Amino acid sequence: MVVVLENNISEEQINEIVKQLEDFGFQIHKSTGVQKTILGAIGVKPNFDTRKVKILKGVADVYRVTAPYKLASRSFHEHDSIIKIKDVEIGGNNIALMIGPCSVESEEQIFTLAEIVADSGAKILRGGAFKPRSSPYSFQGMGEEGLKIMRQAADKYGLLVITEVMENSQIDLISKYTDIFQVGARNMQNFSLIKELGNSQIPVMLKRGLSATIEEWLMSAEYILANGNKNVMLCERGIRTFETYTRNTFDLSAIPVIHKKSHLPVVADPSHATGLRDQVAPMARAAVAAGADALMIEIHNDPANALSDGPQALLPSDYLTLVGELKLIAQAIGRTIN
Amino acid sequence: MVVVLENNISEEQINEIVKQLEDFGFQIHKSTGVQKTILGAIGVKPNFDTRKVKILKGVADVYRVTAPYKLASRSFHEHDSIIKIKDVEIGGNNIALMIGPCSVESEEQIFTLAEIVADSGAKILRGGAFKPRSSPYSFQGMGEEGLKIMRQAADKYGLLVITEVMENSQIDLISKYTDIFQVGARNMQNFSLIKELGNSQIPVMLKRGLSATIEEWLMSAEYILANGNKNVMLCERGIRTFETYTRNTFDLSAIPVIHKKSHLPVVADPSHATGLRDQVAPMARAAVAAGADALMIEIHNDPANALSDGPQALLPSDYLTLVGELKLIAQAIGRTIN
Amino acid sequence: MVVVLENNISEEQINEIVKQLEDFGFQIHKSTGVQKTILGAIGVKPNFDTRKVKILKGVADVYRVTAPYKLASRSFHEHDSIIKIKDVEIGGNNIALMIGPCSVESEEQIFTLAEIVADSGAKILRGGAFKPRSSPYSFQGMGEEGLKIMRQAADKYGLLVITEVMENSQIDLISKYTDIFQVGARNMQNFSLIKELGNSQIPVMLKRGLSATIEEWLMSAEYILANGNKNVMLCERGIRTFETYTRNTFDLSAIPVIHKKSHLPVVADPSHATGLRDQVAPMARAAVAAGADALMIEIHNDPANALSDGPQALLPSDYLTLVGELKLIAQAIGRTIN
Amino acid sequence: MVVVLENNISEEQINEIVKQLEDFGFQIHKSTGVQKTILGAIGVKPNFDTRKVKILKGVADVYRVTAPYKLASRSFHEHDSIIKIKDVEIGGNNIALMIGPCSVESEEQIFTLAEIVADSGAKILRGGAFKPRSSPYSFQGMGEEGLKIMRQAADKYGLLVITEVMENSQIDLISKYTDIFQVGARNMQNFSLIKELGNSQIPVMLKRGLSATIEEWLMSAEYILANGNKNVMLCERGIRTFETYTRNTFDLSAIPVIHKKSHLPVVADPSHATGLRDQVAPMARAAVAAGADALMIEIHNDPANALSDGPQALLPSDYLTLVGELKLIAQAIGRTIN
Repeated sequence: MVVVLENNISEEQINEIVKQLEDFGFQIHKSTGVQKTILGAIGVKPNFDTRKVKILKGVADVYRVTAPYKLASRSFHEHDSIIKIKDVEIGGNNIALMIGPCSVESEEQIFTLAEIVADSGAKILRGGAFKPRSSPYSFQGMGEEGLKIMRQAADKYGLLVITEVMENSQIDLISKYTDIFQVGARNMQNFSLIKELGNSQIPVMLKRGLSATIEEWLMSAEYILANGNKNVMLCERGIRTFETYTRNTFDLSAIPVIHKKSHLPVVADPSHATGLRDQVAPMARAAVAAGADALMIEIHNDPANALSDGPQALLPSDYLTLVGELKLIAQAIGRTIN
Repeated sequence: MVVVLENNISEEQINEIVKQLEDFGFQIHKSTGVQKTILGAIGVKPNFDTRKVKILKGVADVYRVTAPYKLASRSFHEHDSIIKIKDVEIGGNNIALMIGPCSVESEEQIFTLAEIVADSGAKILRGGAFKPRSSPYSFQGMGEEGLKIMRQAADKYGLLVITEVMENSQIDLISKYTDIFQVGARNMQNFSLIKELGNSQIPVMLKRGLSATIEEWLMSAEYILANGNKNVMLCERGIRTFETYTRNTFDLSAIPVIHKKSHLPVVADPSHATGLRDQVAPMARAAVAAGADALMIEIHNDPANALSDGPQALLPSDYLTLVGELKLIAQAIGRTIN
Repeated sequence: MVVVLENNISEEQINEIVKQLEDFGFQIHKSTGVQKTILGAIGVKPNFDTRKVKILKGVADVYRVTAPYKLASRSFHEHDSIIKIKDVEIGGNNIALMIGPCSVESEEQIFTLAEIVADSGAKILRGGAFKPRSSPYSFQGMGEEGLKIMRQAADKYGLLVITEVMENSQIDLISKYTDIFQVGARNMQNFSLIKELGNSQIPVMLKRGLSATIEEWLMSAEYILANGNKNVMLCERGIRTFETYTRNTFDLSAIPVIHKKSHLPVVADPSHATGLRDQVAPMARAAVAAGADALMIEIHNDPANALSDGPQALLPSDYLTLVGELKLIAQAIGRTIN
Repeated sequence: MVVVLENNISEEQINEIVKQLEDFGFQIHKSTGVQKTILGAIGVKPNFDTRKVKILKGVADVYRVTAPYKLASRSFHEHDSIIKIKDVEIGGNNIALMIGPCSVESEEQIFTLAEIVADSGAKILRGGAFKPRSSPYSFQGMGEEGLKIMRQAADKYGLLVITEVMENSQIDLISKYTDIFQVGARNMQNFSLIKELGNSQIPVMLKRGLSATIEEWLMSAEYILANGNKNVMLCERGIRTFETYTRNTFDLSAIPVIHKKSHLPVVADPSHATGLRDQVAPMARAAVAAGADALMIEIHNDPANALSDGPQALLPSDYLTLVGELKLIAQAIGRTIN
């Protein structure tokens, strides 16, 4: 922590501040410039609230110079983390595809789509059984019945399953059916939930909150890692900005930034980021070009009658065309999709 | 719903769109202008996803013209809702004060502060026993022990209690001790939680999410109302913007807007909005002047050693000075604080 | 400037970084902690681009610990600046009122309104003759004719004039008629314009850009101050956020922050911040309660037919009621309005 | 324009509103639903301020259903606009590259870089002679001397020139040297400037303001088009959000949206969007994948000593590697770069 003192501060005031900082448990190095005195405080605990120093009389500014997360940082774990689930790897040179409908709606629907997913070469089937909906009047998902049929469809076609968990009481149930837990954007800071997922060994894909900074996102990953689950991947799905012509602003610049700050794999979800079918393909291509380690894309065989988010689902044929383009782009940057 | 069609659309295409809308269950009125054809669709269900129309060929734009919330709207309930808890009213002409520490830390602390709260004329004691913290390494609250001593302190000094509930499994426990449930900003769209709180009759104060629009906030209130709990109040606590000199941007303009759109009372929380003690007083004054129905303010007798959010807590003496000013401002706009 | 080095950096790499920093002209103090080495760099020029250090190999983070502005900062000028224009002061204990129509529209209109302004006790008449409009098809102002009649109306009723300057070529002309230059939000970083206004001695009111941080706003003030014009006041008029129920988010928390960081007076403009008449009064009251040094408010005798921004103009009678409330609020915080 | 009336409004009130709307010059169609009455108003002028209707008693909401821009819209001009300058096309199937230093610094620098630009196959040389800088203490550009040497360098290597114009008084001068005017983000709503550029026939590249919506951006393009200059291209360069780990958020989702709403070509500038060299390459690749019609990228032969924005400039060798990747990505989506 670096503490910048106010100009024209007396020697006595400086000593008081130093004493207070030592009482907080820090070792202090003092640098005196022409205009400014700066104190370097060594030994800051990750949970120290720097505002405690900011409000001391004579303090102009305070900078925390160590990231508040540790296990999630690349300085703690130098090489890219690769998450292995059966024969699938996420975070390596190959780019994984997580494909399926927004919601599991029926046996027929999920088996039809699972076949398309498998035929395209993708290895992971997505689908929601418990749906967080902003309106109390919207379809809230099929529940356990949905989980069951998604598992059966995945098994038939040799796919992994990823599905969303919304609250602590669902963890045990969903554990029986899924290969990856998805934590939704609105739950990124549901600390009870992510703490509990840290006690599981099932991999967790943590979506970025609508207005979460990259630092907060990594702090939430830290919750899971600190509780013992090392299998965490992040998922960029669009952030909230002032723009109204798009549903969210897909923050692709977050991808290289996370790759620099952290060793965790990054998934990109152009379907939720854009919310409209005709923007999904260009944004999926851009995500691969920007360095995403996996893509999550929604497809539907009958989007007009989908029970949720039909307007953002790709038709199967458009999806297959897109996969072809994505493979070429992956190749252009020395990666593969298969 | 109003559907604007693209220029130069053929009569045949228009008929197809009309047919599709009728299949969705709407009655259609057509207005043909010189440049534009507009369809008015009557009978839109609150959970209808307007993007289903937006993606139809020939549709330029879609406007939902009824608010997606109903029970929370002023057009449903014309007069201000007043929430009565024992002898305290929130939402009437008197402005309620909810005062106390961020976290309950010890018996001594909470009794000391409860006495100060009661002496100032405030009627509601705030304090957290379960704390949502962005770092897994920070103090997470005293739990049930904290609830117990806060209840005892409140009872001794004739105060109501408001405290935060973080997850469904805490509802029963906290119900035994609190008069008002507080739902934190990060849980505003924890739909499992707010649905369950709708089944209680204990009043709920719903904090605005960091990046929640006023519409989404009212939709979350709708979840609680739709499940049968009519005692909902909203709490503005600052939104996330690009500004970095302040922790959040305290959106006081939301207060008159909500008073226009909704009948629910609005609380303002300048402590969390600003995060720094010296900004709390001016923002508390501004909130009263802007029309807030209640204020939530954090105080601490020893902020330097507070276990959470000490830097934003007012010292008791500064708090008492502030209350004096707030009374005069309330009076200037024809309201009272007592 | 504080430079944080990466963990596990070699002594040799540290020496290279130190050498590079010395080549940039800094004196270096080194602090070595258990995990981190931190370099304090003394002698940073205000125009030094810290990214030059951020991209050096082995550097983890860089913090500029001196504000990039100097003349605008309170550490340079400890006491509040008071701007005196004839017998009016802005920035002292009295809160100034700048009142008038959005645009000067006709002789009758501006004389009618000037009389109302004077009768209310306000001392400054506002009105635009050159209008920045986001649409090329909107009314663009009366030009010099508007300036002339506004000056005549102000002189008749003993008022000062404030009016907007949009480009360098208008400065000489407007100088002949105005007492205060207004720089609009969209021109806050029109560096050609603000540099030139720094060469004038006529006071300048600098509106905050829609998405300008407080730091950038103070940097733009610095441009004017650095060119020799000491008479600068700032004007908060709402910032852009994700919220759509309000036109802008009126950032009242900026007022106490600026009063801490800077000695310059702060004006608040609730008319442009909210854009709708019924929100102007509560936000004007809140601005006074938050510590604004002056208010700018639009009024109109016939808002339905105003040529610009009629919907945000107060009717004269509502304005007079508001002034009565504002006086009481000012009194509650130990200030005056007269 | 669609006007939604409040529930429970009387027939008499409806008639008053209709009369007022007819006085504004509209033709009115009335649709009466079970709960809502909706008025369709035909004949809205692009400059009509819809708030005039919003404040009428009995009006719940107002929707402008025609875009406020016309010449910039795809419904006005169905096919992609292609801007031809000598033998270079922008907006067609080939993706144009605009490459060069942030600022022109010396004859040696600009000739060295121009040669690299030409060798890479790019056709357009970028470089600033007048620099908008947020600090008054930063390098402000070489002025006319910079323009001269950039023109000479471009001519020697068969390149076009693009350079920034900051104010009206520079237009004539810069016209003598440039092939394309660049309008910077901070000037996107400098209406005096863009209006004047509309009187020129030299193509204009209009950068998006830091917090400009796509609609406002298209409105600014409309200013130029409405004054007679049809050669307008847009440039996405990052928007301001709450994120602090990146300088701006590069809004690539704007690209497909603009291609849908407008016929104008879209340039992407990953250098200014990210501000740091190591993020430029992934974001340049993503921009091509997302459908950009041209890229603007900064390079420098000696970035450590660049007078402005060195940290975001690519080294020539990294730039050449990038061009190779970009060509493959262009090919993957059926386009070319040459």
